[in-house]
Amino acid sequence: MSTGPLRLAEVVAHCGGELVGDPDVVVRRIASLQSAGPGDLAFLSDARRRAEAAATRASALIVPETERDITTLPRIVCRDPYAYLSRASALFQSPVAGAPGIHSTAVVAAGAEVAPSASIGPGCVVERGARIAANVMLGAHCAVGEEVEIGPDSHLHAHVTIYPRCSIGPRAIIHSGAVIGADGFGFAPEGGKWLKIYQTGRVLIGADVEIGANTTIDRGALDDTVIEDGVKLDNQIQIGHNCRIGAHTAIAGCTGIAGSTTIGKHCMIGGAAMIAGHIEIADHVVIAGATGITKSITQPGIYSSALPATAVREWRRSLAHIRGLDRISHRIRELERRLAAMEQDR
Amino acid sequence: MSTGPLRLAEVVAHCGGELVGDPDVVVRRIASLQSAGPGDLAFLSDARRRAEAAATRASALIVPETERDITTLPRIVCRDPYAYLSRASALFQSPVAGAPGIHSTAVVAAGAEVAPSASIGPGCVVERGARIAANVMLGAHCAVGEEVEIGPDSHLHAHVTIYPRCSIGPRAIIHSGAVIGADGFGFAPEGGKWLKIYQTGRVLIGADVEIGANTTIDRGALDDTVIEDGVKLDNQIQIGHNCRIGAHTAIAGCTGIAGSTTIGKHCMIGGAAMIAGHIEIADHVVIAGATGITKSITQPGIYSSALPATAVREWRRSLAHIRGLDRISHRIRELERRLAAMEQDR
Amino acid sequence: MSTGPLRLAEVVAHCGGELVGDPDVVVRRIASLQSAGPGDLAFLSDARRRAEAAATRASALIVPETERDITTLPRIVCRDPYAYLSRASALFQSPVAGAPGIHSTAVVAAGAEVAPSASIGPGCVVERGARIAANVMLGAHCAVGEEVEIGPDSHLHAHVTIYPRCSIGPRAIIHSGAVIGADGFGFAPEGGKWLKIYQTGRVLIGADVEIGANTTIDRGALDDTVIEDGVKLDNQIQIGHNCRIGAHTAIAGCTGIAGSTTIGKHCMIGGAAMIAGHIEIADHVVIAGATGITKSITQPGIYSSALPATAVREWRRSLAHIRGLDRISHRIRELERRLAAMEQDR
Repeated sequence: MSTGPLRLAEVVAHCGGELVGDPDVVVRRIASLQSAGPGDLAFLSDARRRAEAAATRASALIVPETERDITTLPRIVCRDPYAYLSRASALFQSPVAGAPGIHSTAVVAAGAEVAPSASIGPGCVVERGARIAANVMLGAHCAVGEEVEIGPDSHLHAHVTIYPRCSIGPRAIIHSGAVIGADGFGFAPEGGKWLKIYQTGRVLIGADVEIGANTTIDRGALDDTVIEDGVKLDNQIQIGHNCRIGAHTAIAGCTGIAGSTTIGKHCMIGGAAMIAGHIEIADHVVIAGATGITKSITQPGIYSSALPATAVREWRRSLAHIRGLDRISHRIRELERRLAAMEQDR
Repeated sequence: MSTGPLRLAEVVAHCGGELVGDPDVVVRRIASLQSAGPGDLAFLSDARRRAEAAATRASALIVPETERDITTLPRIVCRDPYAYLSRASALFQSPVAGAPGIHSTAVVAAGAEVAPSASIGPGCVVERGARIAANVMLGAHCAVGEEVEIGPDSHLHAHVTIYPRCSIGPRAIIHSGAVIGADGFGFAPEGGKWLKIYQTGRVLIGADVEIGANTTIDRGALDDTVIEDGVKLDNQIQIGHNCRIGAHTAIAGCTGIAGSTTIGKHCMIGGAAMIAGHIEIADHVVIAGATGITKSITQPGIYSSALPATAVREWRRSLAHIRGLDRISHRIRELERRLAAMEQDR
Repeated sequence: MSTGPLRLAEVVAHCGGELVGDPDVVVRRIASLQSAGPGDLAFLSDARRRAEAAATRASALIVPETERDITTLPRIVCRDPYAYLSRASALFQSPVAGAPGIHSTAVVAAGAEVAPSASIGPGCVVERGARIAANVMLGAHCAVGEEVEIGPDSHLHAHVTIYPRCSIGPRAIIHSGAVIGADGFGFAPEGGKWLKIYQTGRVLIGADVEIGANTTIDRGALDDTVIEDGVKLDNQIQIGHNCRIGAHTAIAGCTGIAGSTTIGKHCMIGGAAMIAGHIEIADHVVIAGATGITKSITQPGIYSSALPATAVREWRRSLAHIRGLDRISHRIRELERRLAAMEQDR
């Protein structure tokens, strides 16, 4: 993976697409239509931004086939500019720091296996029996528990904690403050107190998973918590013990999923969703942000209970009306009765 | 505390219960009915799982007295299998790592007191005047501020932060990323800006408290924030300054409690509950998940405002109806007036 | 900045106000009316607390001009006791620990610039090209990425992570576990999988910003995420990529703001608010706690969709009624039709 500046011909050679215009134009970074200037490659994915595309100061554009003639600037024509952006953004991404080897301040237990190509950052702690595969990068202060496995090419940013015996697949990206494998919330009530149920399961994470900053995934109580391949988790998500998140499901920030819930494959879950425990969500379900899910969902589709705000005075009237629905229901019944009586008399 | 394999006779000797069947059967771990195999001790707590109990491949079962004859496998009969699971899970729990002593990479200030039996992990920082009692275990990179006290047998996992002058009782379990004693959110408005009110109170945590990963408990503004004995807090909970959480209350993940609120004893609060500041919740209150609490609750009972999702089209109709309740109310009044007029004419 | 004990005359010399009573009375800390004892300076800001003020055991009081004669104790009379509290609390605040210099266990890359007056705590990691200004204090284990800038007099508590190229203004206070600059949640769907869009923007934070424990602010996708001057963020807030938070806006804990949303200046946002992406909130907007914002707000005012809990049985009736609104609407239409028919016949 290179890092700009690049000639447009080079971009197309790496990422595909059809080049219209001068192949020797040099671009140094990707930018939005609005903020782009000379040396920038901007992209148009949304037809509503045509005016911005016309006005952009970028040196070149990425455009969809339908907008091939939107500009006279040099341009890369492709089927899906947003997917193209993904490839091109990788091209311009600075290579992440981290030379192979174990930093002198890291603490790696005897008996931990660290591939020679892995980079173990300053202050990292890798416990007994852990296995760190090729090209793994651990940022500063990562704590990797006993017998943890981390698959090749994974990147843990600073301050990631992996509890004992959990397993991370290849090509994971885990952001700072994420905690994988803390105890699930399991207690038995007895005599007004709570007895801890020791959580002896693990967290098993598949390939190509990204986990956001300060997200927490609890280990299973007896069986394991499972995150399947290709799952993308945003920041500050909480996943309870014994959940299973299906492959290629994406979950936005601040969502909480209580224990023992199974989410299907290819789901999209909006931010701040609140999902109860012990339920099942089918594949291809879309859940709106700020939505509560209290029962299993068996059919694909879009589900919501998001409550949009209004001016507080108006909202208070709505609340009063909702509380008055019992009374409204009664008044309608009464009207029906009286009207029927009159109709009969007629 | 031992760690398997154990003979059933040994399990019963430690945890009680009545053994039916061969006392010499050896079990190595506890497992769920479904995933159990030879060498596993499974448990049945829920009569709806009888079919699974009949089909389990476990070597032995924990069963309630009412299900004494559910199986011909060796079995431990007890009053409450879930509470029994708690004791038995402790028996099979691997002893937590951490030899007594201060790791060579830890930084312990002169004048901090660390009991000889305490285990201070790699990279820990213990500031001046802190007191760490017997058998305390600090995981990697814990930061313990000035004059903090940590009671005996407490276990802080990696990356726990305790701000100065806070106090943790005996037998606490605090998970990674928890932050105890950060400043409460206190500002005075003046001329369109916010003036910080320095937060000079502390966080005082009782005995036998468990605190989940990335949970935050703010120090008091002037007085203290108090977590009483036996409280269990799940992950990603936020407790504002000057709150008091009553003894043996359990709070599920992602719940936020604003400042100066008092929660009673023996409460159960569901996940993602949102609790306003400056209110009081009585003892023995149960709050459903995803529920907003805006006023004090004076009576025990179950409270909810959780809004379950429906298909988005249906939900939009409901929202439109809610917004139309003013109009519905008006139409009913109108019907009542017209009908009364007709009835009078009759 | 000093730290008590102080004579009342000294308090007034530093913070202003009019002293009524003995200027030589010595106070050692500020306390609430209820918990104050001899040697404490208590404050009365709310007329509802007059009874507590009369009964307080404090040695002196801070009172508003309207309550000048509430007590015979020595007292400081001022216009706004809450703003006064801010200044006085600073006076009694213990000076934060941290001698100038780089702790022997910190890892500062060659080429990072650290002002001689800055204090770099144990285990901190400061990467290549970072610039740490005068009087900055980094608590234990902070991770400061490449080319990060931290302005003068800023204080990062233990375990703060700043990703590469982000910028923090002067006088920031950032609490433990905060993560600034992790990747925004950006993926392009292709063939049922998610392609990562590398996040190449930054986080730019203005002057006098406070950021709570475990709060996360994502870096921009292409452009930057911006937090303007004087913004105050509580704990466990999530701010998505490319958001802009206007100057002097205060946001309470557990709020999530999805990507590309602009919040105006001088807004107040309650706890656990859920704010959608790609919208704009005007200046001087107040949003209640636990409120969902799904559309832009163009007018100042108070907005809410908070749903207060009721006893669960009552709540279930309300939910059933809400689901039955379609039917109610139909019955009213029917009543109107029948009544109109009768009225016509009359």
